[in-house]
Amino acid sequence: MKPTPRTQLARKPDRGSYDRATVHAILDEGLICHLGFAVEGQPYVLPTTHARVEDRLYVHGSVASRMLKTLKGGTPVCVTVTLIDGLVLARSAFHTSMNYRSVVILGAASEVTDLEHKRSAFNALVEHILPGRGAHIRAPSDHEMSATSVLCLPITEASAKARTGGPVEAEADYALPCWAGVVPLSVQAQAPIPDARLAPDTPLPHEVAFYTR
Amino acid sequence: MKPTPRTQLARKPDRGSYDRATVHAILDEGLICHLGFAVEGQPYVLPTTHARVEDRLYVHGSVASRMLKTLKGGTPVCVTVTLIDGLVLARSAFHTSMNYRSVVILGAASEVTDLEHKRSAFNALVEHILPGRGAHIRAPSDHEMSATSVLCLPITEASAKARTGGPVEAEADYALPCWAGVVPLSVQAQAPIPDARLAPDTPLPHEVAFYTR
Repeated sequence: MKPTPRTQLARKPDRGSYDRATVHAILDEGLICHLGFAVEGQPYVLPTTHARVEDRLYVHGSVASRMLKTLKGGTPVCVTVTLIDGLVLARSAFHTSMNYRSVVILGAASEVTDLEHKRSAFNALVEHILPGRGAHIRAPSDHEMSATSVLCLPITEASAKARTGGPVEAEADYALPCWAGVVPLSVQAQAPIPDARLAPDTPLPHEVAFYTR
Repeated sequence: MKPTPRTQLARKPDRGSYDRATVHAILDEGLICHLGFAVEGQPYVLPTTHARVEDRLYVHGSVASRMLKTLKGGTPVCVTVTLIDGLVLARSAFHTSMNYRSVVILGAASEVTDLEHKRSAFNALVEHILPGRGAHIRAPSDHEMSATSVLCLPITEASAKARTGGPVEAEADYALPCWAGVVPLSVQAQAPIPDARLAPDTPLPHEVAFYTR
């Protein structure tokens, strides 16, 4: 993608990327996005699940949702996905930092009204949470489909930013006696908790038992 | 806190809370926030670290940062912190969901100019990442202090929202044969990676070795 004046990184441009594959990989790994829109000058930032299909990002919610009602009018939106990769423990407060990867998408969303398109977006939203899940569960009924708004945001004006590696210190600070380095962080799944009404002999699918992000 | 027309939850109000302790606990557990502001109607949502002290939220960054320059002018801001607690794997796509806790704060930030206040906010930002770290590392120099803007947002207009528990299904779906339940998720630390220039006999502090969030 080409940077635009709005996505061109002013601070630490060496941390930035406009590479499509880099942007897509971060969007796919992040479980949720933070979606920003403004109403009468007041911004709102709300967390929601998303799914990417090619150059399109989908979000969904109840047709009664204020957020979705606002967005489908074509108001400017910003979608940000952030992955936290680690604590950067420098020998000074000033250089203490975080390793992360993030993507910012600017644009305007439109409502998906074509039913086939909407069904495939719905499936992508399930598959984003847990690949393989869509085949095992009941697809949306017509009633559920009409109770849900699905919005599509083209991924055409976007940038990625990342910090990696260890602390970068002021030269004199390397002599300080404190420990310094990186504490890597990741999202980990704990043992699945079966639903209270699950039949006791229901097999635990492989993709649930060995979930990783 | 009292809900305002802007923080009153319209959707699923049973998931909401305006309880100060609930709001503070989520802000303290979240490593980063997503900060939203609008410039000429275009919202921007950027990830950044934060720290809470009493009823105040602090963020910081370079004095050259476009975001901080915009915010210190008192523009309306929204700060959102989200914790992802698990995948809710229902027997239908429609009821597939996530367990989460989130806080949304609305307001306007102001720059911290008093030096003692700014130093204590700087320390809180380090302690937010790793409690106990402040005592071991070099405090900011005067030059570093003047190169950094610290902003303060009062936590007076805020709401928390959470989903907990297992899937809530349409009654007929309980008969479906697929596995259903929750996959709990948490942020986990991996083995610390020492800085390449760390003296080999530097002890690993307890709070680094046993980091949990």
